[in-house]
Amino acid sequence: MNRFEPNLRIPGPTGLPPSIRAAGARQMINHRGPEFAAMLERVMTRMKPYFGTTSDVAILSCAGTGGLEAALVNVLSPGDRVLGVSMGAFGDRFAKIASTYGANVTKLAVEWGEAADPAAVRAALAEEPAPGYRAVLLTHNETSTGVMNPIPVLAAAIRDAAPDTLILVDSVSGLGAVPFEMDGWGIDVVVTGSQKAWMSAPGLAMVATSERAWAAMETATMPRFYLDLRAHRDAQAKGQTPWTPALAVVYQVDEGLELMELETAAGIFARHEACAAAARAGLKALGFELLADPRFASRTVTAAKVPEGLDWKAFNGSLKARGLVLAGGQGKLTGLIFRVGHLGSVTLGEILDAIGVLEEASIEHGRPVEAGAAVAAAQRAALEAIGALAPVEA
Amino acid sequence: MNRFEPNLRIPGPTGLPPSIRAAGARQMINHRGPEFAAMLERVMTRMKPYFGTTSDVAILSCAGTGGLEAALVNVLSPGDRVLGVSMGAFGDRFAKIASTYGANVTKLAVEWGEAADPAAVRAALAEEPAPGYRAVLLTHNETSTGVMNPIPVLAAAIRDAAPDTLILVDSVSGLGAVPFEMDGWGIDVVVTGSQKAWMSAPGLAMVATSERAWAAMETATMPRFYLDLRAHRDAQAKGQTPWTPALAVVYQVDEGLELMELETAAGIFARHEACAAAARAGLKALGFELLADPRFASRTVTAAKVPEGLDWKAFNGSLKARGLVLAGGQGKLTGLIFRVGHLGSVTLGEILDAIGVLEEASIEHGRPVEAGAAVAAAQRAALEAIGALAPVEA
Repeated sequence: MNRFEPNLRIPGPTGLPPSIRAAGARQMINHRGPEFAAMLERVMTRMKPYFGTTSDVAILSCAGTGGLEAALVNVLSPGDRVLGVSMGAFGDRFAKIASTYGANVTKLAVEWGEAADPAAVRAALAEEPAPGYRAVLLTHNETSTGVMNPIPVLAAAIRDAAPDTLILVDSVSGLGAVPFEMDGWGIDVVVTGSQKAWMSAPGLAMVATSERAWAAMETATMPRFYLDLRAHRDAQAKGQTPWTPALAVVYQVDEGLELMELETAAGIFARHEACAAAARAGLKALGFELLADPRFASRTVTAAKVPEGLDWKAFNGSLKARGLVLAGGQGKLTGLIFRVGHLGSVTLGEILDAIGVLEEASIEHGRPVEAGAAVAAAQRAALEAIGALAPVEA
Repeated sequence: MNRFEPNLRIPGPTGLPPSIRAAGARQMINHRGPEFAAMLERVMTRMKPYFGTTSDVAILSCAGTGGLEAALVNVLSPGDRVLGVSMGAFGDRFAKIASTYGANVTKLAVEWGEAADPAAVRAALAEEPAPGYRAVLLTHNETSTGVMNPIPVLAAAIRDAAPDTLILVDSVSGLGAVPFEMDGWGIDVVVTGSQKAWMSAPGLAMVATSERAWAAMETATMPRFYLDLRAHRDAQAKGQTPWTPALAVVYQVDEGLELMELETAAGIFARHEACAAAARAGLKALGFELLADPRFASRTVTAAKVPEGLDWKAFNGSLKARGLVLAGGQGKLTGLIFRVGHLGSVTLGEILDAIGVLEEASIEHGRPVEAGAAVAAAQRAALEAIGALAPVEA
């Protein structure tokens, strides 16, 4: 059936709501003037609760990957021992950036589709001779597999086994969509990106740093200039960024936070939970096997396995022809999975629409489905997730 | 007098034409899909002639400063000898990034307001014992002083004295507004930024690299990941960027290049020359002394000295109240100069408007001016610059 706009269901960039699109069209202003200073202050103030921190948040003009690099190079020195807990392509990348800058990285590889095991992390920390690891790298939400790590449990295990170790968290595709308590959980650096939960175009990475991280910066010797968080702290004191910011994206994030304030954090978290539940239920009802351990299924992206015998390229062509844009697999999962993004501006209607298109394409490709059953399952799961229904007896 | 939009006359970000603002409001697309690939290809193809190169142009999501860092860390190794030719705050910054990453930098400092002297550069190269400098850093257009270096002459001197030395050029605020011949002049790395001549929001740095620079990358050991140009080259072959690009700014640059194609390079260069001439003539007619050596006056930004006895803060308040937004001085020129940007979307009308407001404010602050004389001088200089008038006999 015809449609007039694609349903962009990749795990970022996400679709932009109308007022955020309009913000992207605003005329430029002086980024060294009072209007910008007020906006920067507003963005930081409204963003901090989503990090769960009272620390300042630096607004870097770069992709999430640049934010991950900033998290590492500001607090580490070449030769530092680092434990890279990786459960997918982005965990691997986080570890790789650290080793590129000379850190001595041991990777704790988790099977793709699984979450990190606190006991395994604890054991890895215990095995390391004194003085232990300087830092542990965690991925909050692994975009490549649709797994969300149990960060509070992992952080508690790390803090218990290695109280002074820095905990650096990639929450590029998690923060803002689900609860996070950086200060309460004892996290040292957290990174997120404008094109994920913040409903804006890509171009900004936001990085918050604990007091322990600030202290680490004083002695860290990895070279950094563009991504130097000390330059950001100094400029922030004057209501500026050290280098010319991606101004139009700041406009958008500012507007996004306005929308988020109206919706409330509780409303945003419930919407993400409902859309995630709907995506999982709909995909399962269509006969797709999900990749992620259901106990740690991501609330922002769901990965499903490409069934044996299904020609993914042809199937995806049928989806695209109907205006549904999904993401394929990354790294070693290329061709083996597909991913449905449900973060940022996502609505339940968009998930129902996606499941409906997947059903249409399934019928076209001869997969056995019962017409309407998957969208019914998706709708039901969403309502159940937000407590609008009594749970179905198993 | 009232107005309905400010006249943003800072040297970037520049005002965005309507169609570029509209491009900033476009909905997101999949940055790993064919639509993005086509756009990336189009942007690169249309941008290369402004670099004067047949080499590929990497589109980095960062500020110009990030582009300068990329220019350095991709081709240099810690300990490399580097000659940093600096004529202002941005030349200093370029040199500082190099030393931050461990280069052994000798700075050839030029008095702020002057251009680099080819003979002095040649002498500095001759003084260096074998194997000589690995790289020379040049600023094309020094935004902090309004001086434009004679790059072809400097590059010829360097190539003559040190044929294998890498020549890295910061043309963040120059490229696209004035002619540039990277290949013809033997330049190895050239950097520009979206918010300057390209009439777009900040967020992208564009970097072109010669064959000699690509060869240097094979042995360069400065650490880099986010800014690694090899990752960009590999991704570009697939019509992608390695990390999520600042997509809305790519939309804008794409639209900007469409406007530039309609105007033609010759038209753009003439417009910049005319606006620069108008700014200089208007400011002089108002009794302001210009900072830059007139032989090397920038075509994209003009710096004027704050006259003795004039309270700059109060004067600037009068300008702002009339909607004219200028830039102050940077670094050691803070409080001593002000700067008028005339690049990107600038029109002669906007310069006349700026000169008119400066006249009004001058009258308010008791400076002696003849009503209308400065805008007349500006208009006349512009027409003369584009050859519409016979030059006035001296």
